[in-house]
Amino acid sequence: MKRMKKIDGGITAAKGYRAAGIHAGIKGPKADMALIVSDAPAAAAGVFTSNKIKGAVVKLCMERIIGGVAQAIIVNSGNANACTGEQGMKDAVRMGQLVADLLHIQEDKVFVSSTGTIGVPMPMGKIERGINLAVEALSETGGDAAAKAIMTTDTKDKQVAFEREIGGVTVRIGGMAKGAGMIEPNMATMLSFITTDAAVKQTALQSCLSAAVEQSFNKISVDGDQSCNDTVLILANGMAGNKPLDESHPDWPLFVDMVNEITLTLARKIVEDGEGATKFVMVSVVGAASPKDARKAVRSVANSLLVKTSWFGEDPNWGRVIDAVGYSGAEVVENQVDIMYDDVSAVKNGQVAAATALSELENVLKKRSFSITINLNIGKYSDWIYTCDCSKEYVQINSEYMT
Amino acid sequence: MKRMKKIDGGITAAKGYRAAGIHAGIKGPKADMALIVSDAPAAAAGVFTSNKIKGAVVKLCMERIIGGVAQAIIVNSGNANACTGEQGMKDAVRMGQLVADLLHIQEDKVFVSSTGTIGVPMPMGKIERGINLAVEALSETGGDAAAKAIMTTDTKDKQVAFEREIGGVTVRIGGMAKGAGMIEPNMATMLSFITTDAAVKQTALQSCLSAAVEQSFNKISVDGDQSCNDTVLILANGMAGNKPLDESHPDWPLFVDMVNEITLTLARKIVEDGEGATKFVMVSVVGAASPKDARKAVRSVANSLLVKTSWFGEDPNWGRVIDAVGYSGAEVVENQVDIMYDDVSAVKNGQVAAATALSELENVLKKRSFSITINLNIGKYSDWIYTCDCSKEYVQINSEYMT
Repeated sequence: MKRMKKIDGGITAAKGYRAAGIHAGIKGPKADMALIVSDAPAAAAGVFTSNKIKGAVVKLCMERIIGGVAQAIIVNSGNANACTGEQGMKDAVRMGQLVADLLHIQEDKVFVSSTGTIGVPMPMGKIERGINLAVEALSETGGDAAAKAIMTTDTKDKQVAFEREIGGVTVRIGGMAKGAGMIEPNMATMLSFITTDAAVKQTALQSCLSAAVEQSFNKISVDGDQSCNDTVLILANGMAGNKPLDESHPDWPLFVDMVNEITLTLARKIVEDGEGATKFVMVSVVGAASPKDARKAVRSVANSLLVKTSWFGEDPNWGRVIDAVGYSGAEVVENQVDIMYDDVSAVKNGQVAAATALSELENVLKKRSFSITINLNIGKYSDWIYTCDCSKEYVQINSEYMT
Repeated sequence: MKRMKKIDGGITAAKGYRAAGIHAGIKGPKADMALIVSDAPAAAAGVFTSNKIKGAVVKLCMERIIGGVAQAIIVNSGNANACTGEQGMKDAVRMGQLVADLLHIQEDKVFVSSTGTIGVPMPMGKIERGINLAVEALSETGGDAAAKAIMTTDTKDKQVAFEREIGGVTVRIGGMAKGAGMIEPNMATMLSFITTDAAVKQTALQSCLSAAVEQSFNKISVDGDQSCNDTVLILANGMAGNKPLDESHPDWPLFVDMVNEITLTLARKIVEDGEGATKFVMVSVVGAASPKDARKAVRSVANSLLVKTSWFGEDPNWGRVIDAVGYSGAEVVENQVDIMYDDVSAVKNGQVAAATALSELENVLKKRSFSITINLNIGKYSDWIYTCDCSKEYVQINSEYMT
């Protein structure tokens, strides 16, 4: 039985992981610090923001991931420790040091992650007390508390876990993510942490994670803004007892499948919890002249404020969709463009689909989740993205976040 | 006395122009059709949308501008006549034909412009009756009515006029514009019509207009969406009696100045009337490594939803500004970035400006109009854009527009 099975739990679902989520008091009354620990050093891989402004913690993680081994991840919400200069880097290092000392593990195997406001010095007194609390609270059932502690404007925690048989043993993988705004899929987006008890060779783990991120976190967009702290980390501690996996192992595709599934599930959870979102929309472009054209057209539509606000208004305003395709930079021949809302034709040959009643389109827009497919009818390339609408609630949330 | 003077009026301020604005009943109860007529054929120049989806009327104007002469412009709001196929083009031609017949002028000297909903057939019965009414209503004081008739979601009409002495005679220039949403400065943006009684050679007029658009309508952004009907037209009928102007005339810079001033004034009026806007912000980038980098960074900040919503919240959230610079694609060295809000330093060397009290920044954000200047401190190139915030009202307007 090699079929993948969804199981309960998240970051502590796999063997040999403990976690905690506690209240350090960094910003408000909610839990704001998570700690994830593997019982043994684990092969580790990571994908980080491509933003040229990077948080101190991202710079530290990028240094440490070169070693390819991790044993703990300390995460705080409420403060991004970004644009905080030398002191920010000292604070990030100090956080890792404290965790290493308290757990008696090597400092360079501790990863540090922060999310929250940019440009504010870390409240290190609270952070240090919080780390002590988190170490005390570590438990094999702590995944749920950890997932809640990394939330910022998220309204729901985001966790999922799977198991399947690989190389004759049961392998588990679990993960958690946070992110609701500042989400644009250009490289790793938001924070996501994944643990597996599979034994996996580090270079194989990295290439597997990079490919998985490409088809998941890089295919979602909430608002087109890309954070300077985006981080995805995966730990593989080998506690499942399998022979170490890499591309040459016959069951390698089964593991890749698990990583793809967990990243895609977490990515969708992020869009579904997009700030103020009321609609979840898969935008697809087919028939493009090149992969780049398909990508441009998809992202132009998904990031158009006018398109997003029309979804919020449940308005089948395909004019804004074709307009966004037109200025995307992709090759477009107006009288060849077809647009479908789910399976209802809205545009045929660049004009309103005469046989479709407006009410049919309106019925699609009333759904919480629907798809828009744009066929450029020029070439054979396609792309897609998973996105959401832009509501008054989004503006409300983001006009109030910092102060 | 060669100084430029602002005078009353708009599109009919210059000699030899009549206009009208009337209610054709295309969409609602407001005036929705404007007609501008020059007493004599005028040298004409135009700049049109670079969107690959172009309204039928834009295609018609692009054909006719090749001739370089115009005598009338018929404009309707409420329907964009875009994505309307062959019938749309027939309707655009018919509109011009009717105007030409009623005014006894040549058909190929009539320009047609439409703004409103995309993809809806033109209500030609109403349009034809409207054209008859507009011709009857033509008057030398009709500029104001015309400016009001081209408004869609605009809350204010946008018109301005100037006069100055050129080549020994008094020359006047007047213009009007509309546009509040779907505004992104990639080529000509929105509708703008300008008339002057100067005599100007057509090729000089075109190069002058193209350059003027580059430093005005192409430097404003409301929401990053670029319309498929954007049009700027200028008519120069020579009624001022000056010797025809071109680049070789000693007073040519004076005329260029007038065109620059009128386009910039109209462009600013558009941003100041941005849909739901409560803040008007000039974003500048200096010290960039290349002109392209400066442009990328400016536009990334001006189009960031998170930056725009923070302005709405009067929140001096410079973290979102530096984040948007970071993902803009421009060369950025984090610890060299300085950011000013008006003359208050927010960021110095990539970190919070220690000497600045938060209240000083908050006071800038409370103003209706302020500037943000980002110094990348890498090179010598700069760029700027004039933009506005994104409010709940923007979302409200755009979720209700079509239906």
